[in-house]
Amino acid sequence: MKINCDGLSLSEATLKVIKAAGSKTVNPVLEGIKLTAKNDELILFATDKELSIEKRIKAVVMEDGEAVVYGRVFCEFVKSLTNEEIELSVNENNVLKIKYSENEAEFNCFDVEDYPKQKEIEEENVIQLKGKALKNLIQKTTFCAALDDARPILKGCLFEKEKGLVRAVCLDGYRMGIAEEKAGEEGKDCKIIVPVKSLNEILKFIEEEDVDVFMVIEKNYMMINFGTATIITTLLTGEYINYRQILPAQTETKVTVKKDLFERALERANLLSRADKNNYVNFEIEEKNITVLAKSELGTVTECIPMAMDGKDLEIKFNVRFVYDAIKAIDSDYVDISLNGSINPCIIEANDIKNSLYLILPVRKFN
Amino acid sequence: MKINCDGLSLSEATLKVIKAAGSKTVNPVLEGIKLTAKNDELILFATDKELSIEKRIKAVVMEDGEAVVYGRVFCEFVKSLTNEEIELSVNENNVLKIKYSENEAEFNCFDVEDYPKQKEIEEENVIQLKGKALKNLIQKTTFCAALDDARPILKGCLFEKEKGLVRAVCLDGYRMGIAEEKAGEEGKDCKIIVPVKSLNEILKFIEEEDVDVFMVIEKNYMMINFGTATIITTLLTGEYINYRQILPAQTETKVTVKKDLFERALERANLLSRADKNNYVNFEIEEKNITVLAKSELGTVTECIPMAMDGKDLEIKFNVRFVYDAIKAIDSDYVDISLNGSINPCIIEANDIKNSLYLILPVRKFN
Repeated sequence: MKINCDGLSLSEATLKVIKAAGSKTVNPVLEGIKLTAKNDELILFATDKELSIEKRIKAVVMEDGEAVVYGRVFCEFVKSLTNEEIELSVNENNVLKIKYSENEAEFNCFDVEDYPKQKEIEEENVIQLKGKALKNLIQKTTFCAALDDARPILKGCLFEKEKGLVRAVCLDGYRMGIAEEKAGEEGKDCKIIVPVKSLNEILKFIEEEDVDVFMVIEKNYMMINFGTATIITTLLTGEYINYRQILPAQTETKVTVKKDLFERALERANLLSRADKNNYVNFEIEEKNITVLAKSELGTVTECIPMAMDGKDLEIKFNVRFVYDAIKAIDSDYVDISLNGSINPCIIEANDIKNSLYLILPVRKFN
Repeated sequence: MKINCDGLSLSEATLKVIKAAGSKTVNPVLEGIKLTAKNDELILFATDKELSIEKRIKAVVMEDGEAVVYGRVFCEFVKSLTNEEIELSVNENNVLKIKYSENEAEFNCFDVEDYPKQKEIEEENVIQLKGKALKNLIQKTTFCAALDDARPILKGCLFEKEKGLVRAVCLDGYRMGIAEEKAGEEGKDCKIIVPVKSLNEILKFIEEEDVDVFMVIEKNYMMINFGTATIITTLLTGEYINYRQILPAQTETKVTVKKDLFERALERANLLSRADKNNYVNFEIEEKNITVLAKSELGTVTECIPMAMDGKDLEIKFNVRFVYDAIKAIDSDYVDISLNGSINPCIIEANDIKNSLYLILPVRKFN
């Protein structure tokens, strides 16, 4: 391999693909970035076997070739060469040489044969949506996914395409987030479960909100192409929780409250309740106010927030963090909270456009 | 105690004094902030017994009084009240009540009697300098101080006032940084050793560069007054290393090099040499170039930097981080490096204004 390329493009591309490289893996070659020179392009590729990212940049290719370089140091190194014209070459000892100005660096490489091949995806189905829609689906749900490995499927996000809509669902056993967006015309109805970790990387590639994004599906894989970058992620297999069954059929108490007032009160309640891991907040819903009360060894905070209410008075306790996250994720001046007594879950959603919804289980323990 | 004050002033003051509060101390009361209301002021005070910070803000005092509140949570709490008018009061159970809008929070307080008193400083001597001068002395030397506790005195910075100059010196046994600034007229010649940790906090209080700063000294304490804020630090006792003795008397090789080229080369050398804790860089000084060479398991980097030279050719190895830190701290287009063979320390300083100097020991190990 022997090529010339621009330092800035190389640095930007390296920073993008490094996100898919493994760190501290049992198999060190997965900490590498694979470089492939052919057809006037340098292709950078990294994978941890769950997620893979490929990015192509323009290059003057004098000799085709491949190399797998240790990712993190290479990435930091080229970051300091953004103003340089760079020559990359690989010698017979599998050493990558970087020339810039009068200087040069050499990187010992992994054996290319040991590096996993890029999976080829055969399109079996596709979910089409706008960049902005995919962004919303990810941002409004993934914080509700499980973080621990107790039930691996809950570390994924269900994408369900049905009747012209795409619905994203995440839940961790204590709370659930659902968001909905219009689907494009291509592809048939389907359900897939995408690892949240992959979605958080995909999010960073959505630069244009109005562009069409195609989630190309083949059995246990999903691919998205963003111009010169291609992302492939494995899908989680198994049956997702039947989330519809969890949604309550009735509402005894319905509250409408100003989002910013409620959010700031929860922020302060969170500070105090967090202080001694006693992480809950009490809501007293009565007449014209919600009284937010949080207590810990350190002290108490009591805030009275005006609201509009329909139905029965109620006292109920929640994990303050879960309510705060939900309120924060809603883009609306007012939020609606639907409740059914003190031991059933509540539903939180925007007062106007109902394209996302949060369900939160109350805390039953009293103190 | 009962006062009214503005949320923004309270929040800003709390953020300043919290830096002196202890964290995870054996004595939890030191994690507190002491509030004192008197004479139309609220005085906030925190100390970890080494450093103390006091800050005064305007308040409408309806009733004098004191309270010691747990610092970190109080600080975060008032940060969310910057738009509010606040009422603070302490009841007979030593609970601090914060009222804002229609809401209130209560903080359980420490016993005021358990909190250390603010030390009163009787001026025995003073070092007078401009804000900018003190800033320079701190920024140009403290990174050379020791980080570990092997020799506690090396965690301090020597301030030496002599012949109208103030000299700051830090060293860790492998490198030394010296900076010099003009002293104001007040006070007599002296030597004090100030903990670097305290200097780094003092640095944040120097807002105006042209203002006169007075380091007021009483035996083992030093006080600086910045308008409504007062900082007191303990001084380190004991004899500081005789740094003059370490400075080499002669120069066999003198090199002048462009700072930015050298700095960037060292940055890259650091990346590669850091990669396997083999933290050194080789300089080959010959004819018109310094050849910078760093090596590790991952690879090598070789950069050739043009220079002007006087004296003998030389090959020498240094800890790359130490050279990089020194070069980075120098504000000048060109730097001078003075050397004496491959086993004696080098001196690095600006090519123009010689108000700071770095001495670095070479690495003797070869590989």
